[in-house]
Amino acid sequence: MFQARGEKQWYIPDGFIPPDSTGALVSHESVCVLNCSSEEARIRFTIYFEDREPLEDILVVVQGRRTKHIRTSSLMKEGMPIPSGVPYAIEVQSDIPIIVQYSRLDSTQAENTLMSTMAFPMK
Amino acid sequence: MFQARGEKQWYIPDGFIPPDSTGALVSHESVCVLNCSSEEARIRFTIYFEDREPLEDILVVVQGRRTKHIRTSSLMKEGMPIPSGVPYAIEVQSDIPIIVQYSRLDSTQAENTLMSTMAFPMK
Amino acid sequence: MFQARGEKQWYIPDGFIPPDSTGALVSHESVCVLNCSSEEARIRFTIYFEDREPLEDILVVVQGRRTKHIRTSSLMKEGMPIPSGVPYAIEVQSDIPIIVQYSRLDSTQAENTLMSTMAFPMK
Amino acid sequence: MFQARGEKQWYIPDGFIPPDSTGALVSHESVCVLNCSSEEARIRFTIYFEDREPLEDILVVVQGRRTKHIRTSSLMKEGMPIPSGVPYAIEVQSDIPIIVQYSRLDSTQAENTLMSTMAFPMK
Repeated sequence: MFQARGEKQWYIPDGFIPPDSTGALVSHESVCVLNCSSEEARIRFTIYFEDREPLEDILVVVQGRRTKHIRTSSLMKEGMPIPSGVPYAIEVQSDIPIIVQYSRLDSTQAENTLMSTMAFPMK
Repeated sequence: MFQARGEKQWYIPDGFIPPDSTGALVSHESVCVLNCSSEEARIRFTIYFEDREPLEDILVVVQGRRTKHIRTSSLMKEGMPIPSGVPYAIEVQSDIPIIVQYSRLDSTQAENTLMSTMAFPMK
Repeated sequence: MFQARGEKQWYIPDGFIPPDSTGALVSHESVCVLNCSSEEARIRFTIYFEDREPLEDILVVVQGRRTKHIRTSSLMKEGMPIPSGVPYAIEVQSDIPIIVQYSRLDSTQAENTLMSTMAFPMK
Repeated sequence: MFQARGEKQWYIPDGFIPPDSTGALVSHESVCVLNCSSEEARIRFTIYFEDREPLEDILVVVQGRRTKHIRTSSLMKEGMPIPSGVPYAIEVQSDIPIIVQYSRLDSTQAENTLMSTMAFPMK
């Protein structure tokens, strides 16, 4: 049996899905989860906005001893995705400890650009 | 009632507003705040420079259960903005715990570039 | 004798070797290790995937009072490298404390882009 | 009197001065220091390499209540700068707590790219 590593709650204040893409790659964000445990991690996303109520209880499962690079455009609440071109923030809550990193690829212009940071863990 | 998350003091040593922009996007920095609490967060910015006294007591409010992506060019002290093209640093002090991430979009050249990091929290 | 600094376990959820390169620079990732101690650090990598069992026990030694910027494309398990174009995650375990930063250069388009973050330490 | 904030020791494993620059901006790295205290901070850099002994005791002073964005190309040991095009790592030791962020601008190609991360603090 492998032990879980990391924390159960993680935060990413700077969410933004670029509305435009050019060139070979599509603009996107990834919430990259690592689950070192033998057990699956049941993860609940909350999406916060600047001017409306949060989207709550978006569920994702990450299998044991696996990573999952979750595109934020795939997160849906009752069939509704996160709107693009809108500033938002992400809360990640897991039933077991995990490790979370956030990355964005922006290809608004033909030459893409990347940014990445570890999410902020709550201990 | 939702609980506050994060820390009350955050630091960003590498502030810089690029003076030039080309292409579709304007060069800018964002201080991205997430307030998970039901209550509003009253935030006070201090701006430090290399060669002059700090600008103190720039106030911003972030509503409860909301994020705010604050452009540094919008931060004013008695009508005076942070000058562009000058190295500076940012202190963020909140009356309740928040989470803070810093990002910069530089479009000095036609193809823009991004960088991002969590701010440094004081516990 | 110089003391070891940092932590023994570090995590990087967002691993990805860009399959394409153009222009002067080759797309690559680096796991940058700093060993402040007088003694050598014996480091064991585990590579996690989305859909298959982890690659375990890839060994790297970093001499005392040295840094090593390890290209992920050089990490081999029984002669097999990490596949490019596939999302993965990295666990770094050392017998003495070290400090670990992760950076990626993507030159899929002619104009390259960089991202970097400290790895996540387990205390 | 303003209190010092942060930590006294910080680490940056991924140092690299890009040897080439094109376009309007020169490739460079900055070690960005924020000194919140009323007193000056006396900072000592150690530069670690992959294949030779460290450069020790490079001294920089940051005045009280000031930031300093220190270009790594300005760090000299007996008139010798850090070589460009060589992987290295940075240790920052201060006599009072400070906050340290590391950023790199790479303009090897005409369209520049940025990366940034907080340095790793030792508590």
